Amino acid sequence: MKGEFELINYIKKSYGLSAIGDDCAVLPKDDKTDMVITADMLVEDIDFRLEWTTPEFLGHKALAVSLSDIAAMGAEPKWAMITIGVPEKLWESDFIKRFYEGWTELAIEFDVQLIGGDISRSPDKFFVDSIVGGEVPKGNAVLRSGANAGDAIFVSGRLGGAAGGLRLLEKTDDRGASEDWKQRLMERQLRPTPRIELGKYLRDSSVASAMIDVSDGLSSDIHHICEESAVGAELDASLLPIDEDLKTFLDPDELLPLALNGGEDFGLLFTVPAEKISLLKNDDVSRIGTITQNTGVVELKDGERTIALQPSGYRHF
Amino acid sequence: MKGEFELINYIKKSYGLSAIGDDCAVLPKDDKTDMVITADMLVEDIDFRLEWTTPEFLGHKALAVSLSDIAAMGAEPKWAMITIGVPEKLWESDFIKRFYEGWTELAIEFDVQLIGGDISRSPDKFFVDSIVGGEVPKGNAVLRSGANAGDAIFVSGRLGGAAGGLRLLEKTDDRGASEDWKQRLMERQLRPTPRIELGKYLRDSSVASAMIDVSDGLSSDIHHICEESAVGAELDASLLPIDEDLKTFLDPDELLPLALNGGEDFGLLFTVPAEKISLLKNDDVSRIGTITQNTGVVELKDGERTIALQPSGYRHF
Repeated sequence: MKGEFELINYIKKSYGLSAIGDDCAVLPKDDKTDMVITADMLVEDIDFRLEWTTPEFLGHKALAVSLSDIAAMGAEPKWAMITIGVPEKLWESDFIKRFYEGWTELAIEFDVQLIGGDISRSPDKFFVDSIVGGEVPKGNAVLRSGANAGDAIFVSGRLGGAAGGLRLLEKTDDRGASEDWKQRLMERQLRPTPRIELGKYLRDSSVASAMIDVSDGLSSDIHHICEESAVGAELDASLLPIDEDLKTFLDPDELLPLALNGGEDFGLLFTVPAEKISLLKNDDVSRIGTITQNTGVVELKDGERTIALQPSGYRHF
Repeated sequence: MKGEFELINYIKKSYGLSAIGDDCAVLPKDDKTDMVITADMLVEDIDFRLEWTTPEFLGHKALAVSLSDIAAMGAEPKWAMITIGVPEKLWESDFIKRFYEGWTELAIEFDVQLIGGDISRSPDKFFVDSIVGGEVPKGNAVLRSGANAGDAIFVSGRLGGAAGGLRLLEKTDDRGASEDWKQRLMERQLRPTPRIELGKYLRDSSVASAMIDVSDGLSSDIHHICEESAVGAELDASLLPIDEDLKTFLDPDELLPLALNGGEDFGLLFTVPAEKISLLKNDDVSRIGTITQNTGVVELKDGERTIALQPSGYRHF
């Protein structure tokens, strides 16, 4: 058992779970509404380093990653729980207060109510488990499994910025940098924006046939859609909306790998049936390819070449 | 900010949270039903040691502590999520498989469906956040806040056994012991039983006016009821159902502190209006005192003496 995806697949198969396999689980709420629910963990020195971020950014990000999962279902967030493990080094400081301030600012923006959670001591690392529940009209949650051959593939926002920000944070000299472009990239990593409104529009308008958020990285996330939908995909490298700020400090040949595999941009990756593309009135989305019948295979056209794209996004092991 | 309870109170006051302050949050589901939801974290070397337990026991306990919160609301568990942080030392072993087996065995017993969660790498310690959702007829969840002066105070099961088991586990010699009483005490600590059926009965029959599970320890948990209900309590030491197995190895004067402060017995502590006591047909519950008008004050009668009982249960800091 080598990786996170393999383990999830193992658990899913072993225990006959039907609700797992999307950004959120979907549960019936009442006659008109389904509930969606997600849990996301951030662990010190695995997902972040305390010297790279602020308590406020960390509180924001903990909630943002879960809201992004809610967005990917086309749902509206309603409530949240937060569980934190706090090492003694942080207990006496204002860390927890500032963490909750960052969390709360984003919660207020999306009208999310904190309903509970847990607090424990931790031996040495800070960690947080963020749980968010939302609602969507019955049967209307946008799943990963709805893509069909011929659907166009779109992504919102820009790709690679969060990974570029991570590279800057890893260098002590850049971390305190004041240049605007460096600040923007680091904020893409530390303070992501969940695309709740876009997700709701894509569901409301029935434009998106399948959807996922770009958390693991485009190359992995498109594979998740292909696997759940039993389709393939063809992406065009020249169409990828690479973050402009990356071009300031990276070589041209570094840009594409970062956009494909970087992860944590938290845009929405979604598929649109051909006849609905004209309904898509949003300047912030880019068509990057087409769904094919070539089940499980993602091809990338890069100039003259076409390569089989492997899922190479972030893996914990 | 010194303790877990103080922090929870701080967060509650700072953010104007109304749903926090019970074993579960209560949310409206549909016209006839409320949803209850709880999150509970167990952290290696804080809440357990790997050398004391088995992966199966740990999976069982992670779910059991949350089911106990569901029981304390008089609710029926429905679904669960589980988030785990896994250090590399456990990744290559069969630990996770066995953990899920222990979890699943208990989930099947109570018909709980696993709907999601998260898995992350952890730098060095294993931890788990257990989230369980349940249902209860609308407006009927049994809260901590329903106790009135004159109500009788009851507790289910026996007190101090889990804490006694912990004492044995802390001694290398006792850990592998084969004596039945040692095995029973260690299982009380490692493999607690959530009292779902009793909780449902106490809610169905409208016998319980307030309820909590004994997780922090009786002396703390009765204070939680008194604070939320704005009442006081009078307990009688001679009525406490002290675990018989403790008498095998502890001095008589050690028994009462353990029963009062030990924690993790996961019985139900509940209050019953005088006119409903006769409805309580359950051999496994003991009357241990009476609710008073003496707001916030818990008195313990111990023979000739009456002392003011402080909340001295388990605290993380």
